[in-house]
Amino acid sequence: MKGNEFGEIFRIMTFGESHGKAMGVVIDGCPAGITIQQEEIQAELDRRKPGQSAITTQRQESDRVEILSGIFENTTLGTPIALLIPNKDQQSKDYSNIKDAFRPSHADYTYQEKYGLRDYRGGGRASARETVGRVAAGVLAKKLLMQAMPIQLNAYVSSVSHVKLSKPYQSLDFSKIDSNIVRCPDPETAEQMIAIIEEARDNGDSLGGTITCVVQGCTVGLGSPVFDKLEAQLAKAMLSIPAVKGFEIGSGFGGTQMKGSEHNDVFENDVDGIRTKTNFSGGVQGGISNGMDIYFRVAFKPTATIMQKQDSVNTKRESISLEAKGRHDPCVLPRAVPIVEAMTALVLADLYLQNKLSKI
Amino acid sequence: MKGNEFGEIFRIMTFGESHGKAMGVVIDGCPAGITIQQEEIQAELDRRKPGQSAITTQRQESDRVEILSGIFENTTLGTPIALLIPNKDQQSKDYSNIKDAFRPSHADYTYQEKYGLRDYRGGGRASARETVGRVAAGVLAKKLLMQAMPIQLNAYVSSVSHVKLSKPYQSLDFSKIDSNIVRCPDPETAEQMIAIIEEARDNGDSLGGTITCVVQGCTVGLGSPVFDKLEAQLAKAMLSIPAVKGFEIGSGFGGTQMKGSEHNDVFENDVDGIRTKTNFSGGVQGGISNGMDIYFRVAFKPTATIMQKQDSVNTKRESISLEAKGRHDPCVLPRAVPIVEAMTALVLADLYLQNKLSKI
Amino acid sequence: MKGNEFGEIFRIMTFGESHGKAMGVVIDGCPAGITIQQEEIQAELDRRKPGQSAITTQRQESDRVEILSGIFENTTLGTPIALLIPNKDQQSKDYSNIKDAFRPSHADYTYQEKYGLRDYRGGGRASARETVGRVAAGVLAKKLLMQAMPIQLNAYVSSVSHVKLSKPYQSLDFSKIDSNIVRCPDPETAEQMIAIIEEARDNGDSLGGTITCVVQGCTVGLGSPVFDKLEAQLAKAMLSIPAVKGFEIGSGFGGTQMKGSEHNDVFENDVDGIRTKTNFSGGVQGGISNGMDIYFRVAFKPTATIMQKQDSVNTKRESISLEAKGRHDPCVLPRAVPIVEAMTALVLADLYLQNKLSKI
Amino acid sequence: MKGNEFGEIFRIMTFGESHGKAMGVVIDGCPAGITIQQEEIQAELDRRKPGQSAITTQRQESDRVEILSGIFENTTLGTPIALLIPNKDQQSKDYSNIKDAFRPSHADYTYQEKYGLRDYRGGGRASARETVGRVAAGVLAKKLLMQAMPIQLNAYVSSVSHVKLSKPYQSLDFSKIDSNIVRCPDPETAEQMIAIIEEARDNGDSLGGTITCVVQGCTVGLGSPVFDKLEAQLAKAMLSIPAVKGFEIGSGFGGTQMKGSEHNDVFENDVDGIRTKTNFSGGVQGGISNGMDIYFRVAFKPTATIMQKQDSVNTKRESISLEAKGRHDPCVLPRAVPIVEAMTALVLADLYLQNKLSKI
Repeated sequence: MKGNEFGEIFRIMTFGESHGKAMGVVIDGCPAGITIQQEEIQAELDRRKPGQSAITTQRQESDRVEILSGIFENTTLGTPIALLIPNKDQQSKDYSNIKDAFRPSHADYTYQEKYGLRDYRGGGRASARETVGRVAAGVLAKKLLMQAMPIQLNAYVSSVSHVKLSKPYQSLDFSKIDSNIVRCPDPETAEQMIAIIEEARDNGDSLGGTITCVVQGCTVGLGSPVFDKLEAQLAKAMLSIPAVKGFEIGSGFGGTQMKGSEHNDVFENDVDGIRTKTNFSGGVQGGISNGMDIYFRVAFKPTATIMQKQDSVNTKRESISLEAKGRHDPCVLPRAVPIVEAMTALVLADLYLQNKLSKI
Repeated sequence: MKGNEFGEIFRIMTFGESHGKAMGVVIDGCPAGITIQQEEIQAELDRRKPGQSAITTQRQESDRVEILSGIFENTTLGTPIALLIPNKDQQSKDYSNIKDAFRPSHADYTYQEKYGLRDYRGGGRASARETVGRVAAGVLAKKLLMQAMPIQLNAYVSSVSHVKLSKPYQSLDFSKIDSNIVRCPDPETAEQMIAIIEEARDNGDSLGGTITCVVQGCTVGLGSPVFDKLEAQLAKAMLSIPAVKGFEIGSGFGGTQMKGSEHNDVFENDVDGIRTKTNFSGGVQGGISNGMDIYFRVAFKPTATIMQKQDSVNTKRESISLEAKGRHDPCVLPRAVPIVEAMTALVLADLYLQNKLSKI
Repeated sequence: MKGNEFGEIFRIMTFGESHGKAMGVVIDGCPAGITIQQEEIQAELDRRKPGQSAITTQRQESDRVEILSGIFENTTLGTPIALLIPNKDQQSKDYSNIKDAFRPSHADYTYQEKYGLRDYRGGGRASARETVGRVAAGVLAKKLLMQAMPIQLNAYVSSVSHVKLSKPYQSLDFSKIDSNIVRCPDPETAEQMIAIIEEARDNGDSLGGTITCVVQGCTVGLGSPVFDKLEAQLAKAMLSIPAVKGFEIGSGFGGTQMKGSEHNDVFENDVDGIRTKTNFSGGVQGGISNGMDIYFRVAFKPTATIMQKQDSVNTKRESISLEAKGRHDPCVLPRAVPIVEAMTALVLADLYLQNKLSKI
Repeated sequence: MKGNEFGEIFRIMTFGESHGKAMGVVIDGCPAGITIQQEEIQAELDRRKPGQSAITTQRQESDRVEILSGIFENTTLGTPIALLIPNKDQQSKDYSNIKDAFRPSHADYTYQEKYGLRDYRGGGRASARETVGRVAAGVLAKKLLMQAMPIQLNAYVSSVSHVKLSKPYQSLDFSKIDSNIVRCPDPETAEQMIAIIEEARDNGDSLGGTITCVVQGCTVGLGSPVFDKLEAQLAKAMLSIPAVKGFEIGSGFGGTQMKGSEHNDVFENDVDGIRTKTNFSGGVQGGISNGMDIYFRVAFKPTATIMQKQDSVNTKRESISLEAKGRHDPCVLPRAVPIVEAMTALVLADLYLQNKLSKI
């Protein structure tokens, strides 16, 4: 029943329905003494907001964050930090066409069955709009981590449909991630991705893809075995993002075809301490960060909302035909990059604080 | 810091180091009135125990479970159920060769750094032996589910290294899973898998692979959005199992290459109610089970323990050469099948109880 | 670190500093399907608000609640319910006199030491104003309980300083609680209480007292032994209210002087089922409600804010002299009645939901 | 549903029925690096065990603790610490007289109603024997606190029925607490207490009383407002002990009759820092320890088990007459002293660890 809460110590609770009054998040367990400007939060929300480019939904939402509590003179107080993002796009539309419909691969049917009713306007609580609070909270998490370690956290779109960025992350220039609208740091691949997204958009169709996330400079010790292992928390965090269907860390599914003698990461001494020669583990051993790069990949299905006629069933169990109107996101990947980063930061901040108590 | 606890309502806490006095688990939040025989728990432990076949480790552990509390006259009392599995294989071996060594791709280094000390005997808490408590607790979870719904829960080895079972799960006979020592329900594929495991074993090497899990007959409504979505809890559960590096549900990574118009699962009316024509969603929409089959795949890396000489570093940061002796598991997959099933049952039992409170 | 959260299933998280932008609460775990009007919440806030009578603080706060999420067409959705109460009384006062001061028996010193900084305006997070969110959430809890059982929940002021209402609760008319400004259902005693509060107010002094709470019609089975016993949760709930220094249930401290043979509550058969002849237990046995009236008493110290000159120390550890100005609450008891009721309802709603899972 | 778990970071889960195989506790969240000897745990269990004197129950239980996990070479590993206390007194007695009976002021009726069945042997889970795990875990908590601060934690019997120790705690010699069998540090009062307990015992009756607990040397900052205030957690901890009906901290119920001008604790500078001239607050302000002595009082009702004939009702709702046989505790107070201390240590250890994360 704690479904709207994430984390043990650095903890967030999000609230809000897509077309209700406001979305929001309360962060509890954030230590006092972290400096933060409203603009830093706003900047991340702007990376996530709709309408930011030709390949995202054309809904125009300003997504302005209001700090309600927990921050005083630009410093965290150690008390709950409540952040509010009012829903501007609340015009009383005509929802009669979807009010009783179960849209294919949406959450209409399952919410209706689970709760006995649902806010049908724009997907209600099941809307990806809910992630706006996660992104806002993720900024606080990142600030905390950055005060504690020389961390760098970058996510990027590594594939859209069959267009893949095959270069290893080590050869990429992460500063270029935001230099194009698809958030792929390789310009050529980005162009191809944009092209197929535009094609899908024009066909009223949608595409999926993968996001790769790389964490560099993370200290040793993050992760709380045996259940709250770093990779387990990351997996949960990622699979809690709408449309995510898969997660792999380090060698992942590919590593299942290697032999132990190839896959084992041999330890060696470095000037900075112990490191491993290879990093098939993806920076985690026994559920605890080992100081090497943490990298993982997240699979997103194609967006469920498409601009094509589809068969379905309504609440009265009648067969119907549905057609979405207006605006849609032909590919959620570009806007999901800051969400993946935010969830990663939330996991790491929580495990970082937990780790401070692992020995006396 | 709740790292040794799993679940919100149906909750387990495991304890024990591999070569300490005992492994165990306490289950809290299990309702009163579930009938259970000690033998039912024992049967599952026997599926997980070492030494059960030529392709698993030859350590001989009887793994006898003792019920300490919470069960009275073969019925759960609603009080905590403590299950103990004493460690029989505790002979005071000579651990001098690994006491100070950091074995490659093991948790020695990260535990040492995180906690400042570690029980070096047989991997201590990081040993896969810890999962014995999960398997024991999973039996209770399964019994609870079976009293509540016509559920069938089957996991099987779907690939070992490059040998893959390519048939869809719908064409398999799950009753054959335990008919061979690798736990693959397709006899021909099983033979090939066994052959390559034996080869790896003879070379002192190890192999990875994947396990597929299929849940049939699960009722609609399990999953607690937005963070404790069914797929998110399953992902966490699977990634918390030693050696797991990846998870995908439904169409998974493959689905990222489909279009929305292909991937959407269209609803239709059935005699039994609403169902979807296809099931790329893997039985989950909006984080909530929709009554269709839940299926997912789990990636296991090759076992870290191999019988070959490896370079490494010790606690004094000296370069060393290591060679494991004696017994090892050339492929953990066959013994991991009951672990995957147990973790799945634990997730579902917890979400089932949560769901009972979703509406008044 | 979950200090701002209360409850396990029916769970609230409050936020807000006294002179920040807003106070608020998010309720998670409230089942779908409870009907609620905004006015019902507002009515309870009005019972708690300042400035309501001559014996409470003269601050004028309208305390208007805004429903941000979780309620759709006057029905709970099963999603988080966020309630906001903007702080109207935010005029930029001159806080220079208390900015660096540690006011006696306030939380200034301990917050400063614990967090390294504090929002000194009006007590910040430590202000009793924080309880406004609890009262708002308590209305939802009460609605849930009322849909589930024929419950009646009444708190009243049973003593102010040395003026005590000595009549047993059974002889009181609870409908008269709100008929006077001190919220004591006995008109004569109420008059005496009001008189001494007015006297204290005129002297710039303050008074303490006790509140008695009586729950009638509670079903059998609420309470989760061994730690979350009904009386343990009530005790925590009450001691979490600002200024509370004591709690006793049933026979309480007085019962320590009775013999077992006098104190034991003998069971007898009634037309409605089993009941006890006496009720020294206060409706709870073994931590679980037994169907009899639950009654308990809560001790409030005199308000720390007084209009008299007091010695103290400031953040530079200099000796200072302090004198509060303006408005204060000479006795918090009348306004604390709805707070005690709200916290009681929150405890019972949570334990009620927990109890629904105690047997299969 | 977390009823068998206590604490957020330093967390215990107890298990066991009075006449089942064993009682036990698992401690999770205890940092690595605390040195502990089995004998230290045993010593506290011996203070709690039955049969230790003429005024406690004559049941003979050796209560030998076994360390199952989490401690290696007398040092905590940071992994769960499982402690087992086998039930020796498990002879298959004849329980036919209480199997179907609801003993007055016991938990038989409420457990039966809540869970639908119960382990009727010796009270099952509701037996005070459950506290043996708390006492064992409390030793670890105390060791942790002692490594962190110059803490002294003493509880003593301050009243038995009408015999009260009226001296303030400051005038008592705590080293004498264990010098007599009633655990009252004042020899004369102790004698009177023993006399009335013996009288009650000879009459087959029982007595209640109060325990006072004093914590000295606690650092500033413990307590997590607004719900997990130090006094709120202590109140919950105490009310979770069987037979407890009341709790007051600092001035408590008596303080409700003081004026604010008398009750406020004025700050002053001391060589060691800031302190308060008086300490009516009981060492807590705003829910956070302020460095002054923490003192509180706990009310215990007379033991429910008496050796006299009592009327009651059985599971078939028939009127019956009951008479306990054999052994009983005419007054639980002496044996409850180590329980109060243990619960206090558990609260403080948990809040101490929480406080380490309150600022960056």
